[in-house]
Amino acid sequence: MLVVKIGGSQGVGLDAVCADIADLVSKMQPVVVVHGGSAETNEISEKLGFPPRFVTNQSGFSSRYTDRNTLEIFAMVTNGRINTLLVERLQKSGVNAIGLSGLDARLMIAKRKDAIRIVENGRQRILRDDYTGKIENVNGSFLSTLVESGLTPVISPLAMSPDGIALNVDADRAAAMVAGAVNADELIILTNVPGLMRNFPDESTVIPHIPRNGLEQALSLAEGRMKKKVLSASEALDIGVPRVIFADGRVEHPLHNALAGSGTVIS
Amino acid sequence: MLVVKIGGSQGVGLDAVCADIADLVSKMQPVVVVHGGSAETNEISEKLGFPPRFVTNQSGFSSRYTDRNTLEIFAMVTNGRINTLLVERLQKSGVNAIGLSGLDARLMIAKRKDAIRIVENGRQRILRDDYTGKIENVNGSFLSTLVESGLTPVISPLAMSPDGIALNVDADRAAAMVAGAVNADELIILTNVPGLMRNFPDESTVIPHIPRNGLEQALSLAEGRMKKKVLSASEALDIGVPRVIFADGRVEHPLHNALAGSGTVIS
Repeated sequence: MLVVKIGGSQGVGLDAVCADIADLVSKMQPVVVVHGGSAETNEISEKLGFPPRFVTNQSGFSSRYTDRNTLEIFAMVTNGRINTLLVERLQKSGVNAIGLSGLDARLMIAKRKDAIRIVENGRQRILRDDYTGKIENVNGSFLSTLVESGLTPVISPLAMSPDGIALNVDADRAAAMVAGAVNADELIILTNVPGLMRNFPDESTVIPHIPRNGLEQALSLAEGRMKKKVLSASEALDIGVPRVIFADGRVEHPLHNALAGSGTVIS
Repeated sequence: MLVVKIGGSQGVGLDAVCADIADLVSKMQPVVVVHGGSAETNEISEKLGFPPRFVTNQSGFSSRYTDRNTLEIFAMVTNGRINTLLVERLQKSGVNAIGLSGLDARLMIAKRKDAIRIVENGRQRILRDDYTGKIENVNGSFLSTLVESGLTPVISPLAMSPDGIALNVDADRAAAMVAGAVNADELIILTNVPGLMRNFPDESTVIPHIPRNGLEQALSLAEGRMKKKVLSASEALDIGVPRVIFADGRVEHPLHNALAGSGTVIS
């Protein structure tokens, strides 16, 4: 079993990814897809007159502030636009895809972050109306049943609280939890860079292999979004996924290349 | 098995519908939901700067013109907003819902209308880039498998051409085809009126029962959107659904009332 995380719209070549998925599935190599969507959500929020709002926590990390209105736009864009069009693209390639969010069949249960401490104009504040969660459970047996019946699940980064509230979750971490739940042999995280670089953004310094005990050092090399990907890789290894690969999503055969050893392999 | 068609946003009380669905499902009465979404699609298209465009055919019927951009907005709103939020609402009510479009697992296959003759400024024209379809096949056994495993499918009105292109389909007719495919005992079409009226809009003239052979006369009484509902009812009966009920979605127990005989029963 292979889990593939596809990033937002920037850079990753969806036609090439779908062609590789079609090839793998036709060779009886089951695939589960998890995708993101922050960039397109920002774009459409802006057009609808609700520009995204980012908040900074005490440690200086920035994250999206998801009030109920933002959550509904996030759901609409990730689950209705990105997910549906990805399912369409896979169906066109002959892959019998099925789009799911974490709400469907209670696929991904998350704990809602009920209060976020932020710093605004130098003052601390607590936000309580945020709809963001951390996944605690993925229904792997439901996914396995779908896969065994010949389907290719395509999952959007929306989870459900135990009492049925939709929550925005991080797509990289969702992919890690999904990979653990379906006992994946590999988790491939596609990005618009060739892997984790020792000297970012010098692409000739991609690190080909990071051992499990080298992840802490890797975290210190990672920039921006790559930090969350390293944390997700670490989580995936912790729950039993043997190999995580950061691979280039812009090339002609992104998945075949990754499986052949390109990118940064973490194991 | 019961199939319920829920209209767009106007009038139908979603909390009351979901409470009734939760009650039926808890009593082992399986339900499949089909919903629409034209009104909300128009609203969001407008906000995004693409006002909906309607065309008139030779017989004087008006319909939505769905170019690729409109199709993508339609998919986003119906499958990402209306569907996801309905699944959330059902999950909150304790119903283990699963949202699907006709693309998922090739659930609804439709024939694309490849050319529409329209009349514009008194001149005939042919439109070829329309993404609208007529459903030809619904995968009833897939729906039955989901229902047997305790899930409640919630279906958005998007189908797939045999070669994998997403198509906008009429939700009432989709509900009729779904009801036929799952061998439903009843199809309840919820609206914001109490049923088909002999003298529209006089609600005291609701027709309690229409026999199969009275449908043609009923069609002559129907106004606007109700015409399509009468046609859908006729299609449902033709493919073996024993009873179709046009029921009021604005009341406290819309489904229980309909099952108790309120509204217009067609059988």
